[in-house]
Amino acid sequence: MSEALQAFYAIAHQVQDLTLVQQLLEWDQEVVMPLKGAAQRAHQLAAVATAIHEKLTDPRYGECIATLESVNDLDETAKSDIREAKRAWSRAMKIPAPLVAARTEACSLAQSVWVQARPRNDFAGFLPHLEQVVRLTREVADAVGTANRYDALLDDYDPGMDEAQLRILFRDLKAQLLPLLDAVKGASRKPDESILSCRVPREAQEAFCRRVIEDMGFDMEAGRLDVSAHPFTNGSMRDVRLTTRYLEDYLPCALFGAIHEAGHGLYEQGLDPDRFRNPAGGFCSMGIHESQSRFWENLIARSRPFWDRYFSVLQRACPGSFDDISVETFFAAVNTVKPSLIRLEADEVTYNLHIMLRFELESDLIAGRIEARHLPGLWNARMKEYLGLEPPEDRVGVMQDIHWAGGLIGYFPSYALGNLYGAQFLERMREDLPDLDDRLSKGDLRCVKAWLNQNIHLRGRRWQAPELCQHVTGKSLSIDPLMRHLRSRCAAVYGI
Amino acid sequence: MSEALQAFYAIAHQVQDLTLVQQLLEWDQEVVMPLKGAAQRAHQLAAVATAIHEKLTDPRYGECIATLESVNDLDETAKSDIREAKRAWSRAMKIPAPLVAARTEACSLAQSVWVQARPRNDFAGFLPHLEQVVRLTREVADAVGTANRYDALLDDYDPGMDEAQLRILFRDLKAQLLPLLDAVKGASRKPDESILSCRVPREAQEAFCRRVIEDMGFDMEAGRLDVSAHPFTNGSMRDVRLTTRYLEDYLPCALFGAIHEAGHGLYEQGLDPDRFRNPAGGFCSMGIHESQSRFWENLIARSRPFWDRYFSVLQRACPGSFDDISVETFFAAVNTVKPSLIRLEADEVTYNLHIMLRFELESDLIAGRIEARHLPGLWNARMKEYLGLEPPEDRVGVMQDIHWAGGLIGYFPSYALGNLYGAQFLERMREDLPDLDDRLSKGDLRCVKAWLNQNIHLRGRRWQAPELCQHVTGKSLSIDPLMRHLRSRCAAVYGI
Repeated sequence: MSEALQAFYAIAHQVQDLTLVQQLLEWDQEVVMPLKGAAQRAHQLAAVATAIHEKLTDPRYGECIATLESVNDLDETAKSDIREAKRAWSRAMKIPAPLVAARTEACSLAQSVWVQARPRNDFAGFLPHLEQVVRLTREVADAVGTANRYDALLDDYDPGMDEAQLRILFRDLKAQLLPLLDAVKGASRKPDESILSCRVPREAQEAFCRRVIEDMGFDMEAGRLDVSAHPFTNGSMRDVRLTTRYLEDYLPCALFGAIHEAGHGLYEQGLDPDRFRNPAGGFCSMGIHESQSRFWENLIARSRPFWDRYFSVLQRACPGSFDDISVETFFAAVNTVKPSLIRLEADEVTYNLHIMLRFELESDLIAGRIEARHLPGLWNARMKEYLGLEPPEDRVGVMQDIHWAGGLIGYFPSYALGNLYGAQFLERMREDLPDLDDRLSKGDLRCVKAWLNQNIHLRGRRWQAPELCQHVTGKSLSIDPLMRHLRSRCAAVYGI
Repeated sequence: MSEALQAFYAIAHQVQDLTLVQQLLEWDQEVVMPLKGAAQRAHQLAAVATAIHEKLTDPRYGECIATLESVNDLDETAKSDIREAKRAWSRAMKIPAPLVAARTEACSLAQSVWVQARPRNDFAGFLPHLEQVVRLTREVADAVGTANRYDALLDDYDPGMDEAQLRILFRDLKAQLLPLLDAVKGASRKPDESILSCRVPREAQEAFCRRVIEDMGFDMEAGRLDVSAHPFTNGSMRDVRLTTRYLEDYLPCALFGAIHEAGHGLYEQGLDPDRFRNPAGGFCSMGIHESQSRFWENLIARSRPFWDRYFSVLQRACPGSFDDISVETFFAAVNTVKPSLIRLEADEVTYNLHIMLRFELESDLIAGRIEARHLPGLWNARMKEYLGLEPPEDRVGVMQDIHWAGGLIGYFPSYALGNLYGAQFLERMREDLPDLDDRLSKGDLRCVKAWLNQNIHLRGRRWQAPELCQHVTGKSLSIDPLMRHLRSRCAAVYGI
């Protein structure tokens, strides 16, 4: 390896190592940190963010990148690493170090405040922290200097995507989702959702979740499953941590939460171990990340073949809870389509409407068309308009998600993109595995993992998401596969 | 505040924040990290150590320190901060960054290997990692460049102490300990140690430990108590984490372990909150740190007044375990003096002999007079010589402590220094609190905490340990208070 390449990777690897340190501090904050540690943790996160920023803006790093860009005989791995390093480098060069530190500290503090304010519906107490996060996030967007502030944020999560494209995608998607939702409402057949509200002891829930996750191929010696206020996945490669939360009278919360996070976890565990510390060795984009989690949560774990295998396992794991219920009834219940307040518990049809609501509010917020104090009123009005529901309190309304508190503004569209990518990947997977349903009904989840490993995970960020989609499916991103999937599932459940 | 002072503290605070990040990574490695995460963690620790080293060797930091050294009207706080910053700066300037990274990585890996090799008595499997740690630690000592390698290591834990002073202290101490040990052996009265080997369920042990720790004043909202292979304390100020381990047939392991660590924890929680991120705002030295842990573990929690209050609490917490035992019998049992294999479980008289053995071996090791492969043989021979015992296997011999694996070579003397400082502090405390025993027998542990807060904790590193000792006790460090304490306790227990 040339000297420039060695110097380049030395810094790049440190950036990645410190990024994982940052993640660990965040995991710890959510899962184990004592209450009073919040202020210190904010300082620590700011110090690590500063150290990362200093690495990225180290003149030697810029020189390495410039030198290597002019070298012709590099292999594809090195080329993509240099491309991704340059993206991160040029973004960092535009953002002043003190702003990075201030924003990191504010987000960490706001998140701690959110954890305590949410159960108390205390939006007023949370507001000053949220305002600070918004102010500093606007400053970051201005520093990045895209024509449109929101694009500067999107670029951090889904490079290659912009607000204009999203507006078109979401407009088209909404135009097809609303009639489908109406059709469901008019259907005469209705699932019996109430069967999901029986009591299942936490231990039984956890044991079943672990069983499914391990069957999926998640390596528990290279990961963990814990509890947090808002489920998330953290870490990479050989230390990947999932969280979920347990409601003893509503199994789907923990179960689909854990499967969702395990989908993220399999992605991280499935990266190329020789390249995961490289700039292009990590995950492709947050949209692709969410495609993995939503894939397992919905396309697999809400499918009929999956439950043909796992319903009897569930029955045995939770004696008394589902004894007299048929797999048809259970399958229909977990696919109930019904407007609801909480995004995390939303069905596949209405889920994207939750995302659109958030996308519209956060793009207005970051552009300065609205302010943080307007959010509760606008949230409630928009919920009424899109889903016909009015949140009785903020903890099931504007305060339900951790994202804005943590500064993840511009992230929500990734979930909708994930739904689209996932459905498109599934159609391709079915071409490669024509007997997929048969395998699933026998409990062979590993064939799904193997396909995703090969086609998505191992490729890391060699290409950006739109190109990856083209490589995997031979087509550019489209809303059609998702709509085909949703129509087919609604047909199975509602007979429409 | 002057501009130079502001610039100085900005960097100094980042150093401290990153040091706490490093500690958190270590805590996580011992307590929650999945097995396969070891290699990644080593990279992460190396990246953080490098970031700290870069801060310390940042030319702007050196300039700030030089500028501020020539300012006359600084207050005592700033002066001590600059003094301590200069110490850290000049040490860092001598150690090349790649050596810092390599040694940090090697120590982290060696520690992971130790955790698995120890229960298997696999010294051979551990040896290459230990050799690597020793080699890199020698390189660090050489880079620091003291006349004597071991002094360069001591200086990191106990500034102001050197090998020559320790040899004299330990020689004098041994000369008094051995006759005391002989006297104990010859005593006709013997405690009934067997009463400590009854079964106490883990939950009851933990509940009692938590009760005592909270009575001591440890703030559980600013800390945690977890389990690890080797008990330790980690963190500072509002996020202080203790670990212990539970043996269901030997309560003292968890109990005195937890109290020991809570002694460390009270020190960290008791620092001045306005100064704890300053170079001189943290703990004074490891010797003083161990004085706090050993103080609570032995001087308080093995004292008769303590058990006059807590024995009945223990009896209620562990029904059936200590029902027909008197407080006299229990007090005597927890003060049994008897040569044993494990330092952590050693009594107060033989404990220092365990330390001397380690000190002698590690100073020979670091000087190159012996090599790591010689340790098991030398360990066993020295145990025979000092304590008359031969370890039947390495896990209760040379592999019992985590320190060498983690690169903590030069640390062991801090425990013995802690015993000396602690006893000297206690004599002074008794002057200030003449009714101390009476208070303890009523369960007033907070008066001890308050005295330690005021006299030790809040002072941070304003003075180095020898000066702190002078300030607190009016005298320089001496072995006499410890020997007075040990003779008095042996008299109470053995009637000698």
